[in-house]
Amino acid sequence: MKVKTKDGVKEMRAVWMEGDDVVMIDQRDLPNRLNFFTAKNHIDIHRSIKDMMIRGAPSIGVTAAYGMAQAAVKGADMEEAAETIRSARPTAYDLFYAVDHMLTNMGDDPIKAAEKYADSVAAKCRAIGEHGAKLISDGTRILTHCNAGALATLDHGTALAPIRAAHGSGRDIFVFVDETRPRLQGMRLTAWELNNEDIPHAIIADNAAGHYMQRGEVDLVIVGTDRIAANGDIANKIGTYEKAVVANANDIPFYVAAPVTTFDPNTPSGEDIPIEERDPLEVLDIHGVRIYPKGSPARNPAFDVTPNSLITGFITEKGVFSPKELSRMFD
Amino acid sequence: MKVKTKDGVKEMRAVWMEGDDVVMIDQRDLPNRLNFFTAKNHIDIHRSIKDMMIRGAPSIGVTAAYGMAQAAVKGADMEEAAETIRSARPTAYDLFYAVDHMLTNMGDDPIKAAEKYADSVAAKCRAIGEHGAKLISDGTRILTHCNAGALATLDHGTALAPIRAAHGSGRDIFVFVDETRPRLQGMRLTAWELNNEDIPHAIIADNAAGHYMQRGEVDLVIVGTDRIAANGDIANKIGTYEKAVVANANDIPFYVAAPVTTFDPNTPSGEDIPIEERDPLEVLDIHGVRIYPKGSPARNPAFDVTPNSLITGFITEKGVFSPKELSRMFD
Repeated sequence: MKVKTKDGVKEMRAVWMEGDDVVMIDQRDLPNRLNFFTAKNHIDIHRSIKDMMIRGAPSIGVTAAYGMAQAAVKGADMEEAAETIRSARPTAYDLFYAVDHMLTNMGDDPIKAAEKYADSVAAKCRAIGEHGAKLISDGTRILTHCNAGALATLDHGTALAPIRAAHGSGRDIFVFVDETRPRLQGMRLTAWELNNEDIPHAIIADNAAGHYMQRGEVDLVIVGTDRIAANGDIANKIGTYEKAVVANANDIPFYVAAPVTTFDPNTPSGEDIPIEERDPLEVLDIHGVRIYPKGSPARNPAFDVTPNSLITGFITEKGVFSPKELSRMFD
Repeated sequence: MKVKTKDGVKEMRAVWMEGDDVVMIDQRDLPNRLNFFTAKNHIDIHRSIKDMMIRGAPSIGVTAAYGMAQAAVKGADMEEAAETIRSARPTAYDLFYAVDHMLTNMGDDPIKAAEKYADSVAAKCRAIGEHGAKLISDGTRILTHCNAGALATLDHGTALAPIRAAHGSGRDIFVFVDETRPRLQGMRLTAWELNNEDIPHAIIADNAAGHYMQRGEVDLVIVGTDRIAANGDIANKIGTYEKAVVANANDIPFYVAAPVTTFDPNTPSGEDIPIEERDPLEVLDIHGVRIYPKGSPARNPAFDVTPNSLITGFITEKGVFSPKELSRMFD
């Protein structure tokens, strides 16, 4: 991804190695400050993941792979390093996968093995971008929700990859960025990524997405996803379901961009995906400012389920598939 | 409405007279502090409306009527007082109506005339509550958007009037309160009103409304409106359209509560209602905290249009009407 720094525009990923160091953009400080965190050992790696300096399953996986390589070249106890890194987030599949992958595959050049893992993650996202860009013409106006960007996926992004690719090939596009309450990942992170690439966009309150769809000002919706069930239902950031319903009511194509590994054939349908309820203070306090009346409770579901009937297609590194083609893929 | 004060729970309206003073709840300080503003003359009245200490068309109308009564009993130049009060908000129909009404009707007891005007406003809202409460049973879970409450309508509210009436008659209800970005009137004002009345509720991010509708946890949606076109299309706070589409997709009744004066037979349909674009900083800065990346623009439509096809009925002081009955009313 491109990042505007005080020394000009630089090409960088969400995390990388410099010698034995693992360096990452500290995402907690975005968009107001571009700070970097340097992990010197697996304790630092654990902390960077746990404290959400780095977030997004693919970015976390690569950080873990780099952390394992670092531990190996520094002569750390590999079992202890693996245990420390694994324990950073309790439910992150990519984290466990990357640690195990490194234990099995790192051979006698651990850094090379980790770079290979990282490159394969970036290559998938680049391919998602190339396939998805075919859906975007000159003049296309796209709505996206949350941050399915390069920060979360090491590089390119999932939902943002087709947008980057279309812009990169010179197409004149416009992106509506849902602010994505309660945690505002759209306003903070997606807008930051688009701004760095000089892709024309505007931040909108989540409430305004329907208005622009109704007015015919949105041609295409692209979102990411955390999990795709066997029947093509998806779980994604809260609010995705509403956008899909309104897109459907206005005959606007609704696409989900994700690597094939996000498909989970062991989850039959969206009903089988548990919805995490997070701290109500994420709704009630905005950046430390209390806005709600004392005594009023809140509820804070982090995800919702969008049924396959509302999804036009899945943009993957292997091409674009309709929900029906997806189920054939599992059969 | 009931208001919890440090001296216990008190019954009060959004604005009232004490002798020659016009006293109001300063809504800018809610929900964190309950402060009152006392207007001593028509300059103060102008400022209270202009600075949004008082808001909502019916509450503004009553404030103007009281301001005119105050000017009369204090021997002010009535033409000057009328001009000063009228100029507080450029497009507020109720404001102009109330000033003209007082000039014509105040006779030799201006305060009595203003109280009569205020009581008629409150009586309409009370009647909306009685008619709307028939739609609410024991166990009904209601979703509302923005603040169509007593603060905006002097007393009872429009969308909140049926909720108050049902709770007042002992029914066990629950209210989902959309926070209502960008200005958060749901989180700040609706939750404050419900909290004062001990009506069970939870604040949710606007994005979560669809999730609860999809899960079968919402039985009824009630919203207010700023204008009802002749064909039954309505304009209301941005986000209302999305809630209506999702309610419709889930077979949840969607009602609009408003006094009959909100019907505008001179506006043929929603397409004829201009949508105000407000300051992008309402989206970008939340209570003075800058969250967006420098250089990212925002768009901020204040209202959207909900078509009559998505509206189950209108709750008015004259009863509940379907959109089709409404058009017959105009014929």
